[in-house]
Amino acid sequence: MDLPIGYLFNGLNDDQLKKIAAVAKEISMKNGQQICREGEEAKDLYILKTGAIELITKVENDVELPISVLRNPGDIFGSGVLIAPYTYNLTARCTETGTLLFIEGPALQKLMMDDRELGYIIMTNLAEQFLIRLKESRQEIKMHFNTLLRAYR
Amino acid sequence: MDLPIGYLFNGLNDDQLKKIAAVAKEISMKNGQQICREGEEAKDLYILKTGAIELITKVENDVELPISVLRNPGDIFGSGVLIAPYTYNLTARCTETGTLLFIEGPALQKLMMDDRELGYIIMTNLAEQFLIRLKESRQEIKMHFNTLLRAYR
Repeated sequence: MDLPIGYLFNGLNDDQLKKIAAVAKEISMKNGQQICREGEEAKDLYILKTGAIELITKVENDVELPISVLRNPGDIFGSGVLIAPYTYNLTARCTETGTLLFIEGPALQKLMMDDRELGYIIMTNLAEQFLIRLKESRQEIKMHFNTLLRAYR
Repeated sequence: MDLPIGYLFNGLNDDQLKKIAAVAKEISMKNGQQICREGEEAKDLYILKTGAIELITKVENDVELPISVLRNPGDIFGSGVLIAPYTYNLTARCTETGTLLFIEGPALQKLMMDDRELGYIIMTNLAEQFLIRLKESRQEIKMHFNTLLRAYR
């Protein structure tokens, strides 16, 4: 199994990458197909191989707020499977037909329990990624705040 | 050293907690004192023992946006010391005279390298905490978005 390397697997050695590739399975996806849904129990981690995925969140009255588009081989989604409360944090929809790899949560958790270094590296990468997204979100809140400030000045 | 247990140390066993307590140092803080500053190199992890800390971020023209207030023994700040790019993510200011514990970054990193299980647990707790804050931030963005939607409906 050819495993494209995204942020989550950075720093793993060849042996560790082989262990992960060994539990990854390939599926195809079609334009328009929903892969996972925000708030539902997270069962799999997904790795983009080809095609594109849009990540979205629902606001009021089913209006959708786009969060990001994944286009690079190795891009990850479904990371909610790694961490409490084990739910998908965003909805993922295919916007360009392609191929995904997926790893079942229990298989990944077993690898992280058996090889604590692998677990440590993956969790460090995950925390780093969440921090990047947290900073982006705070930046957006600041933008709204600045707009308000200007309106009331 | 009596170590109050916040989210970051959840799940560590007594031996691991002792190792952490052994590298923690105590300092006092006074109302109004700035403990660390957003964007600067993160040197220490801080653990609240008594008193209170306000976490803030700067927006335009030095206007401050309050993020949260820490009041519970064991509350953590300065977690930027654990993760790239190793800078403080927020400014912390004492709002009630009290006592802090601090742990120097290199001492903590050594513990996490020597005991990978300890490192794995801390990083999992950190990722979990960042995810909680990320969801809160996204919730706030949705609120702004909904306000806009209503304004243009």
